[in-house]
Amino acid sequence: MGYNRDELIEVVSSQMPAKRWEHTQGVMETAVKLAEQYGADPVKADLAAILHDVAKYWPIEQLRGILVEHQLSNELLLYNKQLWHAEVGAFVASHDYGIQDMEVLDAIRYHTSGRIGMTLLDKVVCLADYIEPGRDFPGVNNIRELAKDSLEVGLIAGLDTTISLLVSRRQIIFPLTVLARNDLIKKMEANS
Amino acid sequence: MGYNRDELIEVVSSQMPAKRWEHTQGVMETAVKLAEQYGADPVKADLAAILHDVAKYWPIEQLRGILVEHQLSNELLLYNKQLWHAEVGAFVASHDYGIQDMEVLDAIRYHTSGRIGMTLLDKVVCLADYIEPGRDFPGVNNIRELAKDSLEVGLIAGLDTTISLLVSRRQIIFPLTVLARNDLIKKMEANS
Repeated sequence: MGYNRDELIEVVSSQMPAKRWEHTQGVMETAVKLAEQYGADPVKADLAAILHDVAKYWPIEQLRGILVEHQLSNELLLYNKQLWHAEVGAFVASHDYGIQDMEVLDAIRYHTSGRIGMTLLDKVVCLADYIEPGRDFPGVNNIRELAKDSLEVGLIAGLDTTISLLVSRRQIIFPLTVLARNDLIKKMEANS
Repeated sequence: MGYNRDELIEVVSSQMPAKRWEHTQGVMETAVKLAEQYGADPVKADLAAILHDVAKYWPIEQLRGILVEHQLSNELLLYNKQLWHAEVGAFVASHDYGIQDMEVLDAIRYHTSGRIGMTLLDKVVCLADYIEPGRDFPGVNNIRELAKDSLEVGLIAGLDTTISLLVSRRQIIFPLTVLARNDLIKKMEANS
């Protein structure tokens, strides 16, 4: 309990390959920039970014064990294992590293899936995860451009690349991601 | 009550433009073929196809009125009006034309959205609606090819064109369509 930032970085980075830690550093940098631009708390954005992938390289059975033992999400167990590290990451941040800020914990929890009613911090971390400088996938530059003008438009474009990728691979789409995207669109339309 | 097939055709076709009736005839033809190929009841497929778009050209306020008055689906009212005619069509088939076969009514009800646990008849009518000979949209020939070998693979491809179109237009995706697609994929994977 009571890790300072340097200690957190040390303990989190030791749980993943160097390449993934580079990605995390990119997310930290981008999340702080987005937070500053769009009025989220940069300190919280940095903290959530540091921790967001803490459980990404944990063995699947360990992730499953934590989800089951702590009854974190029965639904997640039915879906792609790629989603599990986010829920477990929030649990670990709270349980092992003493993070008590629900906003930070939620930003970790929903950084892959999104959710209905995403907070500003949720959006910042989720979008940063799509567009940090190390990312290279078809369409990423378009999302970076959109993100310059609108956090929401950028994020919708990011979620849409996930949905499109799963469609093209004929893989299961996590329903919450579609609901998150729909919710962002509805709110943009309501505000326009 | 008690319309025969010719009377149904007369009364349904009179409620839509000639062009849409041509589409319905295409769906009838294709649905019967698919039913014969994949072991659904061709008579039920024909009946559901005749009726599937009965309410397609009704005024939106009339569709809304029926959904509200008969409490058919509160959820649908929150989504694209293009979806309303299917639910209303099933109601009309039952209420006005005396169709009592739940399988036929469900095939009408879910012909646009799909649903979790689609019946053979649901699949036949939904897929026929995508690939009847008059349809011409990017990817339709691919779906027609896939449908020759598998009702489910063809239908997944059809639903995926809908999802992809909505993604590309940045429009709301009806969650049930994603759930229907996920369910078809899960069942195919479980059977393979």
